[in-house]
Amino acid sequence: MHEIAERVLTGDPRAIARALRWIDDRVPQAEEILRDLFPSTGKAWVIGVTGNPGAGKSTLCDRLIEAFRKRALKVAVIAVDPTSPYTGGAILGDRIRMSRHATDPGVFIRSVATRGHLGGLSRSARDMVRILDAAGYDIVIVETVGVGQDELEITRTAHSTLVVMAPGLGDEVQAIKAGIMETADVFAVNKADKDGADATVRDIELMIALGGESLVAVGKIRGHVVHGGAGEAAAHGVVAPVGASHWTPPISRVVSTRGVGFDELVAALESHRTWLTETTAGQERRRARLAEELRETLREALIEAAEHDLAATMDLVVASVAARETDPYTATRELVEKFRARF
Amino acid sequence: MHEIAERVLTGDPRAIARALRWIDDRVPQAEEILRDLFPSTGKAWVIGVTGNPGAGKSTLCDRLIEAFRKRALKVAVIAVDPTSPYTGGAILGDRIRMSRHATDPGVFIRSVATRGHLGGLSRSARDMVRILDAAGYDIVIVETVGVGQDELEITRTAHSTLVVMAPGLGDEVQAIKAGIMETADVFAVNKADKDGADATVRDIELMIALGGESLVAVGKIRGHVVHGGAGEAAAHGVVAPVGASHWTPPISRVVSTRGVGFDELVAALESHRTWLTETTAGQERRRARLAEELRETLREALIEAAEHDLAATMDLVVASVAARETDPYTATRELVEKFRARF
Repeated sequence: MHEIAERVLTGDPRAIARALRWIDDRVPQAEEILRDLFPSTGKAWVIGVTGNPGAGKSTLCDRLIEAFRKRALKVAVIAVDPTSPYTGGAILGDRIRMSRHATDPGVFIRSVATRGHLGGLSRSARDMVRILDAAGYDIVIVETVGVGQDELEITRTAHSTLVVMAPGLGDEVQAIKAGIMETADVFAVNKADKDGADATVRDIELMIALGGESLVAVGKIRGHVVHGGAGEAAAHGVVAPVGASHWTPPISRVVSTRGVGFDELVAALESHRTWLTETTAGQERRRARLAEELRETLREALIEAAEHDLAATMDLVVASVAARETDPYTATRELVEKFRARF
Repeated sequence: MHEIAERVLTGDPRAIARALRWIDDRVPQAEEILRDLFPSTGKAWVIGVTGNPGAGKSTLCDRLIEAFRKRALKVAVIAVDPTSPYTGGAILGDRIRMSRHATDPGVFIRSVATRGHLGGLSRSARDMVRILDAAGYDIVIVETVGVGQDELEITRTAHSTLVVMAPGLGDEVQAIKAGIMETADVFAVNKADKDGADATVRDIELMIALGGESLVAVGKIRGHVVHGGAGEAAAHGVVAPVGASHWTPPISRVVSTRGVGFDELVAALESHRTWLTETTAGQERRRARLAEELRETLREALIEAAEHDLAATMDLVVASVAARETDPYTATRELVEKFRARF
């Protein structure tokens, strides 16, 4: 076993930081460590947190860390942070957030800049989660800044996805468009003491109620499994019945600035965790996500291998297609056969 | 040769419509026809038109059709139209636009709904362009509704991309973010008789001037070739000097509602076409785009072939990874080797 992997298993924060950096930089050692650590993963509960910036996601995450710490759980946070290529600056700051939990050895926070390669970041996020899982963190929170399609992909690597909304942002319809409804396992309405919080809760309820049919349609188009239906009980912190085939996202009201409503929010998240582990539908979903991951990494690996094997051929083929000696459709088929036949 | 392909070559509108529908529906005959027609393609000039909805893109396209028709050129338009899965309605309407050119046999307009699979649409758009190219249209306009990343991908299949802006939309900074600056070959400032048009032109000029370095950085990250630098002459409708290695997008002012400025806009577009065909940098760009297309279709074909070949194995591998008997990294490597070794 790689020395860094060994040290990660003991929870050494410097080894963890090194492993995460290797994943971020995509150095070859990263995969070695991930292979070493994989048998020690699968214990952490991974929570994705997403929502528009104005919703107060950072403050909410802070309170969520606090709530889990009260329960004696170790918490790690990966904040996916789309660094602007123009300013080079980070929107979220480790420093601001670290200050509150800096002295707590049970909390590990790391910002990951996206540096323009958002697509591949869902893979990096997943790999980083595994490091933190192997290092013994009970909870790993993956927080994204926005709610774009790529960021939803990242939260889809989580077991439970929490969508944070707030009154007065007018982002409900936008949320539907961006596919949040398919991704959300739990909703938190932050700033619940403000005017309009009731309306926001009602809007979400309406979306969930309407969601059944139209969301199934959208989900099918995108090749995703969409959940909706039962789960009312879960909204009140009650565990969903074993065998429930559908999951309806519960809605929790919180006031992050004052720490109000977090016991209920944690209960709502826990009800989703129970659904995932104790129902066949939940287990099937975990299996489907793993299959999805393998398909994704297989795709990447195939493309990499093909581009390596076919590099020389590609130039010839491009010239031949440009000269209209062959067509791109036939050329593609021939390239696939050539790649398959190489070994 | 397939009967439909033969009829497309004679310019039969019903055969063209059938071929486009087959591509949209991804039926197997589509590829057969595309193979048959490919040797007859490469003559049309493909113009991508993009920009925010408020910029008046449809009216501008209408005038552009008119301007090309005056020059006795046959024009086809593919309007990529993100149909909302919620309303099922089309934002652009064939009917509205057809009415003006309905009786003109030299104009063919077709809306293509995206039906949630925007990603694959750049491939469909490219294939549809080839049908219209083979059918004898001199100009093929590919128009998108918005300026999202996927839509920019679609306009990247064009030879020349026209970005439409208008005063007062406040979309300049957004345009940078969305990567428009990398994609734009020509800018049109529509509604140029309105207050703020000068400011919009200046903003675009500034973005182009600033673009050089920062855009090269962004372009590198995204793996694109970015053009910037010379080409001032082109801005005034003068042909860029042969051998110019860079292209700077000229800016045309138009008033689409009154048809003002379209001779200049067509001249600006033509200067880009000349740059593409008569400079080595332009030729290199065409070659690079073709190579990019082949890489894309190769990727799709590889994934399709792998998912076919490995379907049975995948389920076993997923079960094995879920049981932590193997890890996803090793499993992926083994799957790639298995696929390579299959033939």
